[in-house]
Amino acid sequence: MTKRSLWGWGAVEAAVSVEETQARVEPFFGPSEVECEAPPRLPPVRVPMPPELAGFSSASDEARAAHAMGKAYPDRIRGFRGDFASAPDLVVTPSNERELSLTLELAERERLSVTPFGGGSSVVGGVEPKLGAHHRGALSLDLCRLGRLLELDDVSHVARLEAGVFGPALEQQLGARGFTLRHFPQSFEYSTLGGWIATRAGGHFATVLTHIDELVESVRLVTPRGVLETRQFPASGAGVDPNRLVIGSEGTLGVITEAWMRVRPRPTFRAGASMHFEDFGKAVDATRAIAQSGLSPSNCRLLDAQEAMINGVTFDGASVLVLGFESADHPLDAWLDRAVALAESFGGTCPKGKTSGSRKGDAAESWRASFLKGPYLQDAMIRLGLIADTFETACTWKAFPSLYAQVTGVMREGLQRVCGGGVITCRFTHVYPDGPAPYFTFLGRGTRGGELEVWSELKALACDTLAKAGGTITHHHSVGRTHRPWFDRERPELFAACLRAVKRELDPSGVLNPGVLFDASAPP
Amino acid sequence: MTKRSLWGWGAVEAAVSVEETQARVEPFFGPSEVECEAPPRLPPVRVPMPPELAGFSSASDEARAAHAMGKAYPDRIRGFRGDFASAPDLVVTPSNERELSLTLELAERERLSVTPFGGGSSVVGGVEPKLGAHHRGALSLDLCRLGRLLELDDVSHVARLEAGVFGPALEQQLGARGFTLRHFPQSFEYSTLGGWIATRAGGHFATVLTHIDELVESVRLVTPRGVLETRQFPASGAGVDPNRLVIGSEGTLGVITEAWMRVRPRPTFRAGASMHFEDFGKAVDATRAIAQSGLSPSNCRLLDAQEAMINGVTFDGASVLVLGFESADHPLDAWLDRAVALAESFGGTCPKGKTSGSRKGDAAESWRASFLKGPYLQDAMIRLGLIADTFETACTWKAFPSLYAQVTGVMREGLQRVCGGGVITCRFTHVYPDGPAPYFTFLGRGTRGGELEVWSELKALACDTLAKAGGTITHHHSVGRTHRPWFDRERPELFAACLRAVKRELDPSGVLNPGVLFDASAPP
Repeated sequence: MTKRSLWGWGAVEAAVSVEETQARVEPFFGPSEVECEAPPRLPPVRVPMPPELAGFSSASDEARAAHAMGKAYPDRIRGFRGDFASAPDLVVTPSNERELSLTLELAERERLSVTPFGGGSSVVGGVEPKLGAHHRGALSLDLCRLGRLLELDDVSHVARLEAGVFGPALEQQLGARGFTLRHFPQSFEYSTLGGWIATRAGGHFATVLTHIDELVESVRLVTPRGVLETRQFPASGAGVDPNRLVIGSEGTLGVITEAWMRVRPRPTFRAGASMHFEDFGKAVDATRAIAQSGLSPSNCRLLDAQEAMINGVTFDGASVLVLGFESADHPLDAWLDRAVALAESFGGTCPKGKTSGSRKGDAAESWRASFLKGPYLQDAMIRLGLIADTFETACTWKAFPSLYAQVTGVMREGLQRVCGGGVITCRFTHVYPDGPAPYFTFLGRGTRGGELEVWSELKALACDTLAKAGGTITHHHSVGRTHRPWFDRERPELFAACLRAVKRELDPSGVLNPGVLFDASAPP
Repeated sequence: MTKRSLWGWGAVEAAVSVEETQARVEPFFGPSEVECEAPPRLPPVRVPMPPELAGFSSASDEARAAHAMGKAYPDRIRGFRGDFASAPDLVVTPSNERELSLTLELAERERLSVTPFGGGSSVVGGVEPKLGAHHRGALSLDLCRLGRLLELDDVSHVARLEAGVFGPALEQQLGARGFTLRHFPQSFEYSTLGGWIATRAGGHFATVLTHIDELVESVRLVTPRGVLETRQFPASGAGVDPNRLVIGSEGTLGVITEAWMRVRPRPTFRAGASMHFEDFGKAVDATRAIAQSGLSPSNCRLLDAQEAMINGVTFDGASVLVLGFESADHPLDAWLDRAVALAESFGGTCPKGKTSGSRKGDAAESWRASFLKGPYLQDAMIRLGLIADTFETACTWKAFPSLYAQVTGVMREGLQRVCGGGVITCRFTHVYPDGPAPYFTFLGRGTRGGELEVWSELKALACDTLAKAGGTITHHHSVGRTHRPWFDRERPELFAACLRAVKRELDPSGVLNPGVLFDASAPP
C-alpha cells in the first residue's frame, strides 16, 4: 500500500526531489539550504475510545497525525516542523451508513466534534478537527471505506458512487465499464467524490461543466437527524433545488455518503492549439470572445507571461492561451478553427500549429503530469525554505483588468516588503460568458521559523485585494476556516441566518465541523 | 393600453376565434356549442384599505378580479363562469423597494397574507391569494411598476433588470442595446423576470441553459426581515450557493426585486432540420444520442405522432425531431450536419432538407407564433366545452419508455372513462444527457358545469402516474399549490424542515404565499 506523507502531498515515494526543484527556482531565489522534517509531536488523547466505535476506529499516533490537518501551505509547514497539535482524539472509518449514523449519535451523546474527512486535501482548514465550546474531544470521520461504484445506468449515463471513492479508483471503476466522470481537480489523486461535492470542487472542463455541481444528478446526506436523499431526475423545476443545499455545505450539515453522477464515454476526438499573445490585455479579450462564443472548449487556460515562464511554456514574455476541445462523438476541427480564428483576430499566433485527431496531444499529456505534480513541488519548496502558495477567484470580465492590476501590484509589493522579492503569476482555470476564474501563484523566500507569519500577511493581502477588486473569495478552493473572515463579508447576512437555521434542523447539537463555513450561533 | 382578459389568456383583442378552433378540434370531438363567459362575481372586501398603502393600491373590482387567480385550466373555468371568490382584498403596486418593504411591514402588522404577482400566468395556483389561519385579509403584490433595465455591462454580457419587467419589454429594452436574454417560456408575453426566477421557468434553450436558473448571475430578494442580495460573480465556490435558495422559492421567502441576468448578442447564424421517424422508440434513441453528443442544440424538440398531428406538422404517423442551432459568432453547419447524421443513424429522414444561414427559418417563425398562441387556443376550447391541459416532467432516459407508455396508457383510458374519449400527446421541451423533459397535452370533452371535477380526476391520474413512473412532478411549471400533494412526497422530508427553518428566519410571521410550495408549520 502507498505510504502517504504525514505533512506533505500524496505518496512519499512520489516526492519531487529537492535537486530538481532547486534547479527550477534558483534563477529566482539563488541557492537554498535544504531542511529536514521534524518527527511528529502529538497531543495526548482527551477522551477514551467509545467501545461502540472500537471495531472501526483508531487512536494510533499514525492515524491521528494523518487526520490532523489538510494540505494548505500553513498545514504543511506545521507538519514539516512536527506540530500535530490539531490531531483528533480518534479516527473513525465506517464501512456503511449504520456505522456512520452510530458515530454521529455517539458524538452527540459524548460531546465530540465530527470532521468528515475524504482525501484530506483541503487547503482552507476544512478537514482540521476543532472543538466547539461544548465539545470534549474531536473525531475525524474518514470515509475511505466507502469507495465503490454501486450502479451504472449506461442508457442515461449516470453512476451511483459511494462518496469516499478517490479520483483514480473512481475513474478506474468507471473506465472498466467504458465511462469516465472527467473531474480532474489538481488534488485528483488524493481527494474524494464526497469532498468534491462538499466543497464545490472545480474540475477538468474550463467551460459549462466547470464545478462538480453540474455533474451531480442526486445526492445522499447522512445527518444527525436522519438521511436527506434527493431524487434521481435529470432536472426538476420543483421549488428550491435540494441538491444545491448539500453541494457546498462543507461537512457542516451532514456527511455525503453517495451520489448519482453524470458520466460520459471517454473522449475519442481531440483538437487543440496554443495561442501566443504579445499583449496580455489582447489575450484576455480573445479569451473573453471565445468564452462568449458558445464554442465551449473543454480547455481554455490563459497563462500570463510569468505563469507561462514558470511553467516552462514560453520565455519570451508572451501570454499563452491553451485551447482544447474533446468529444466522444465527433471531430472538432470546426470548433477549433473558429476558436483559433477568434484568437487570431485579437493578435494571437499559433507557432506550433493545431493538433487534431483521436490521441491526446503531447502538450496535454505533459500539462497533466505537471499539473498533478504541482502539490509535490510545493513540498520540495518547503524543504528549500520557500513560501509557495496559490489563491483563486472569479470576477466579471469588466472587473478583471483592474483586479489583475491590483492583485499583481499588491502582491509584488508585499513579497518585496516581507520576503525581499518574489514572483506572482496568473492563469485562468475556468471561463464563463460573464467572467474568468483567475488563479494566482506566489513564491517568496521564507524566514526559517517565521513562515507562518509571513504567509499569513501575504494571504491576508491577497484576500483583501480580491474582495476590494470585486472577486469572490474562492472559485473552487472553498471556504473552510481560512476564508471565513472574507466570506463573512461576501455572503448576505440573511443567508448566514438561513444556514444557521438549516443547521439547527439537521445538526442541532452542532457536532459537525464547528467553525467551518459559518458559526452555528449568530454573533452577539 | 392592452385590455387583458379577466379569466382567459393575455389580451382580449388577441383571442383565438372559436370558429378557427372549432375547425381544428372537430375531427376529434365533432361539433360544439359555444358558451359565453359569465360576468365576474366578487366577494366583499374583508379589510379596509390601510391609509399608508392608499397611494399605490387599489380595491377596485377590476383590480381585485385581475389578481384573483392564475391561468391554469381550473382557474380559467372558474373565471369563465364568473367565480372570482379568491379575489384579494387589495392590490398593491409599489414603484420602489421602500413601498414594497412598507407593504410587507404593514401586512405583518395587519395580519394580511401577501401574494407576489408578476404576469399572473401561474398554472399551479401560485398567484392565487389565500389566507393562512391567522390572516384577516389578502393582499396581492403586483410588481408591474418595477419594469426597467437598470444597467447593462456590455463587456461581461450581463444586465441588471427590475423583476417586474414582462418578457416583451425586457427584450425590447435589451434589444435597443444590442442584446437579448433569449428566455422564451410559452407565457413569455404575460410573465415577468421575477416570476421566471421564483418558479424556475424553462425557456428557449433545449439544452444546457434550459432553466432561468442558469441565466441568473445574482439576485435581490426583499424579505420581511430585510434584503438578501447576492454578489455579482460569474461563478463562486464559496459554500452553499445563495442564488439557489432564492431561485425556485415561489414567493414564499421574499419578493424578488432585481437580478443581474446573463444576456447575449442576438443570434445571426442559424441552422435547422426536421427529422422524421416511423418509430417513436428510434426517435427517442436518436434524441438521446444528440443530447449526449455535446452538440448542445438550442432546439431539440421531439414530437410524438399525436403531437405532430395536432400541431399540423405531419399526418402520416411519423414522430418529428425539430433540431435547431443558433449563434452570434459562427456558422453552424458542422453542428447540424453531425446532429442530422446521428438522427439518420437511427432511421430518421429529413424530407424538407436542412436550413442554414443568417435568417430564421419559416418553420421556426411559424412554430414560435403557434407556440405563443397556445394559451389563447385553450380559452377558445373552454368556450367550446373542451377540457384542454398540459403537464410536464423530467426523468432519466432509462425510465422514459415505461413512463411514456404508462402516462399515455393511463390518460387514454382515463379520458375514455370520464370524457368518453380524448387525445393525449407528448413532446420533449428540453433534453439533458441523462434524460428528457417530456411535456404532455390532453384534450377531452367536458361536461358543462362539471369540468372542474373531471379535470381534477384527470390531473390526479397524470400526477400519480408521473410519480409512479419516476418523473418529477414538474420540470418547469413549478409547484404552487396544485402540485403540493405530489411534491410533498417527492422532496426529502428533512429538506422541507430546512425550508420551514429558512422561512422562520426570513418571513417569521408567515405573510408570504401561505401554502405555496410548503407549509410554514410542520404537519403534526
